[in-house]
Amino acid sequence: MDDPAQESSRRLKLIIEYDGTDFVGWQMQAAGAGRTVQQTIQEAFQTFTGSDAQVVGSGRTDSGVHARGQVAHAIVQTGLDCEKILKALNGILPHDIAILSVTETDGSFHARYSAIERRYSYTISNVPCAIDRRVAWYVRYPLNVVSMNECCKHIIGEHDFRAFTSSQAEVHHYRCTVTAAFWEQQGTKLIFRIHANRFLHNMVRALVGTMVEVGRGYYSPEEFSTALTSGDRKYAGPTAPPVGLILEEVLYSHA
Amino acid sequence: MDDPAQESSRRLKLIIEYDGTDFVGWQMQAAGAGRTVQQTIQEAFQTFTGSDAQVVGSGRTDSGVHARGQVAHAIVQTGLDCEKILKALNGILPHDIAILSVTETDGSFHARYSAIERRYSYTISNVPCAIDRRVAWYVRYPLNVVSMNECCKHIIGEHDFRAFTSSQAEVHHYRCTVTAAFWEQQGTKLIFRIHANRFLHNMVRALVGTMVEVGRGYYSPEEFSTALTSGDRKYAGPTAPPVGLILEEVLYSHA
Repeated sequence: MDDPAQESSRRLKLIIEYDGTDFVGWQMQAAGAGRTVQQTIQEAFQTFTGSDAQVVGSGRTDSGVHARGQVAHAIVQTGLDCEKILKALNGILPHDIAILSVTETDGSFHARYSAIERRYSYTISNVPCAIDRRVAWYVRYPLNVVSMNECCKHIIGEHDFRAFTSSQAEVHHYRCTVTAAFWEQQGTKLIFRIHANRFLHNMVRALVGTMVEVGRGYYSPEEFSTALTSGDRKYAGPTAPPVGLILEEVLYSHA
Repeated sequence: MDDPAQESSRRLKLIIEYDGTDFVGWQMQAAGAGRTVQQTIQEAFQTFTGSDAQVVGSGRTDSGVHARGQVAHAIVQTGLDCEKILKALNGILPHDIAILSVTETDGSFHARYSAIERRYSYTISNVPCAIDRRVAWYVRYPLNVVSMNECCKHIIGEHDFRAFTSSQAEVHHYRCTVTAAFWEQQGTKLIFRIHANRFLHNMVRALVGTMVEVGRGYYSPEEFSTALTSGDRKYAGPTAPPVGLILEEVLYSHA
């Protein structure tokens, strides 16, 4: 490389937690659109390195969606060691973003393209909740978790999830391989966990919204299965709100 | 009773959750002092009953302290059944307060004087945290949970806790009977749980602040024990911030 700036640039892997409530999402947007996590982290890098940084996430999260384990790579120019970068970032960033780790990586690692699995959770509270109101969707009617778990059996494996994505999604195909999907009861909360190689836009929220219709008895698990195989968004239920959705973890073939 | 208003008044037991971040505490204060949980609930009752309500809590929680199971009794005048009162309150109250249950009780029940045990938790995060930043104290140095649990052995039983309370506390005596006290590790969090018949002002936070000094190696568990028996606040450590403290539950002899 002849460009001296390029020569000194490093590629770091970041693990990031954020409360998405007050962000318009992960992805940088046009000026004035609101706070984004990506832009906020890029600016934090600029503050202490004095040069531009490029931060690329494993995927977008929408407005109001949270992360406990978003992964990004950052192309930055600084001589600081990773431990000092971690402290500098957490010292600069607002309280709704926390960097959990910074490690050295190289050009073979791409936060988005190297990812082999994403893991999300979605939390429903069956009672009004104050403390967890930013991370749980309050559903007032009783839900049958057994029939919601029946739906999960239809999700697991490789399927075309066209019926569970926003119509405007621009993707080459709709096939996703789901390796785990289940609901668990924890006190007055119901937590949905889903692991897959990829997710379509609004997919988890559309699945949750539809399974809630099953849980309250509006649809049967068989109708859920029919909606999935139909490939038609109109046979699925409403999209659950972003509040309960958390990107928990992103897995890579190499650490 | 000759007063018709008195005749129609009822006594209800409430279980209350709140995020204390944006309150100056439970206890009603002089006008202009800020939002209190007690006042906010009294006003919610007034909104739908059209008459004054008196709400009495099991005890005060300080500014910034949370509750998952605060208990109060409310003296109110309304003909609505408990289920409707619960819905009305949750419909009116701001999102940082949730009423978990409303049940009928009578003059034999007093939220404060009938309580036989209070249970608190205090959460420390050993890494910066975004999602739980309102309910966990971020402590940046590593903590030895074994020596912190050594301290707990000295707390359990009946002791004079004068060394662990604010000097201005106005109480007849300082004896408290602690029935459980322990730290548990949950991932990157350390959670302290303590159950006692009564708590002095700032007692849990002073205990936590002092045990953190033990956990980081500044004091030994023996010095912690000496501080307790000294009865002198100056031998104990600093008071931990309110952010991590949650009133979990209040127990009564009768349900």
